[in-house]
Amino acid sequence: MPDATARDVGEFGLIDAVVERLGTSASVLVGPGDDAAVVLAPDGRVVATTDVLVEGVHFRLDWSRAYDVGRKAAAASLADVAAMGGTATSLLVGLAAPPDVPVSWATELADGLRDEGEVVGAVVVGGDTVTSDRVVVSVTALGDLGGRPPVLRSGAQPGDRVVLAGRLGWSAAGLALLQHQQATGGGVSIDVLVRAHLQPTPPYALGPELAALGATAMCDVSDGLVADLGHLARASGVHIDVESRRFAREPLLGRAGRVVGVHPLDFVLTGGEDHALVATVPSGVALPDGVTRIGLVRPGKGVRVVGWKPSSTGWDHFG
Amino acid sequence: MPDATARDVGEFGLIDAVVERLGTSASVLVGPGDDAAVVLAPDGRVVATTDVLVEGVHFRLDWSRAYDVGRKAAAASLADVAAMGGTATSLLVGLAAPPDVPVSWATELADGLRDEGEVVGAVVVGGDTVTSDRVVVSVTALGDLGGRPPVLRSGAQPGDRVVLAGRLGWSAAGLALLQHQQATGGGVSIDVLVRAHLQPTPPYALGPELAALGATAMCDVSDGLVADLGHLARASGVHIDVESRRFAREPLLGRAGRVVGVHPLDFVLTGGEDHALVATVPSGVALPDGVTRIGLVRPGKGVRVVGWKPSSTGWDHFG
Repeated sequence: MPDATARDVGEFGLIDAVVERLGTSASVLVGPGDDAAVVLAPDGRVVATTDVLVEGVHFRLDWSRAYDVGRKAAAASLADVAAMGGTATSLLVGLAAPPDVPVSWATELADGLRDEGEVVGAVVVGGDTVTSDRVVVSVTALGDLGGRPPVLRSGAQPGDRVVLAGRLGWSAAGLALLQHQQATGGGVSIDVLVRAHLQPTPPYALGPELAALGATAMCDVSDGLVADLGHLARASGVHIDVESRRFAREPLLGRAGRVVGVHPLDFVLTGGEDHALVATVPSGVALPDGVTRIGLVRPGKGVRVVGWKPSSTGWDHFG
Repeated sequence: MPDATARDVGEFGLIDAVVERLGTSASVLVGPGDDAAVVLAPDGRVVATTDVLVEGVHFRLDWSRAYDVGRKAAAASLADVAAMGGTATSLLVGLAAPPDVPVSWATELADGLRDEGEVVGAVVVGGDTVTSDRVVVSVTALGDLGGRPPVLRSGAQPGDRVVLAGRLGWSAAGLALLQHQQATGGGVSIDVLVRAHLQPTPPYALGPELAALGATAMCDVSDGLVADLGHLARASGVHIDVESRRFAREPLLGRAGRVVGVHPLDFVLTGGEDHALVATVPSGVALPDGVTRIGLVRPGKGVRVVGWKPSSTGWDHFG
């Protein structure tokens, strides 16, 4: 049945088809198929986070293939583990989908979840599949801190450097191009930006690396840099200066900005969903490859972008 | 704003209102408000499971209060941890809800999640709130095995007794009464059964207790006794005889059955969602209070209900 649907094969047929695509690892003591999974937590603690993606809100079925949705859904949770300084070990997936969803859609979703997990060595160990009129994917990631304390949002100290790992604004620029194409019935595509929107590539490994270097605070950028640094500044009771001159000019963001009428720094400062990592580190720490300084922690409160006025401050799901 | 909605207060206002209702425990090193939670996993392993409840599929907003939905959603996952022989420590909650959902609905949901967690000492440590056109609640439970091996579905041996902890058929009977009332525009209600449907009460503590007594296999009854024992029998490579004469006659199920035209044993054998625990234990094990023998493991395959022919075999989400 190449075009079989969930209804054709039933709940357990669907689960079997999905589980067949998944891998395992030495961390997994009990994988899919029992009441619950059992995963190693080597240092006696587990990092855990849940993110939910909803069709029509976080992805569109006409823009994202199932594989893209799987990668993006996994990335959102895996980045949260990295932002604590942890290494993800496993994923649990809740899938709500219409009965007429093709089995192939679900297996390609599983492929995407598996492949994104593989980037950090995390495997899908369990989940649940239920009926719904639209697709909702909830992903829980579990991870290990390697004996280190978690890096919270609340530890930034005046004098610390604010540093960035990963891309900013690429996902927002890709989304803006897709929306512009739809609105104009044509227009310009920049594949690498659209791809960054459909499949973000968080710098997972730099999370534990920054933790080991003594990062005092860290978070991933999911709502936009200014918004997320705002959360971090508030939690730490500090002020943060973002130095806009430190962002390298990215010609691709400039091109996208000209197409849709947005300044490229707007993408960088307010675009979410790239799941870059921002951290604060004591001055004097030598930054690893892929990490750049973008600002400074000062006494006070709030976030100021030196040399720029951003046009909005982030993404509120109910605003 | 007594009638404020999620849209009125925004995503972060909603999260603040929800988090305010939650408790904490000694197992929680980092609770809500950071990128991820950090929870103790004392024996170096963590039990983890996710369940998803969808409005209109698993609950109806005209039948279930938000508090009921919270208790029921937590119970589904907490029972899975108990069915591995574990004790739950924490919950992560993904909530998808329309922007016009009242803040009070979300806080009452949180109250329900908190109170059901408190039954076993588990607390809500994190989650995600997103927009959707209907309510979807995904709950991940994490738990601890207390140094014991997990009790899988695959360990049943011929000669073992099949034992039951908790209620069977109450949730199904309560649902049948609600549906009958709706269909007939009136009719009989039996509050204790309707309540069992809206807020199941799994026998959580008996999961670890049966594990400590040497249970060879265990699962919770979420799809119906015959269906779930079928999964257990297949995983273990055994046949299971369910002895229908061992089920005590329950006058309330008899009354409900007469109202809706169903034999009470049908509720018992095929009704899911009570999240009772069924286990197999070696013969000679003295059963604790609240646990009764209901059958026998034999060589072979499949499940036979001795003295009864059930009318269906369980609940398939896509069938």
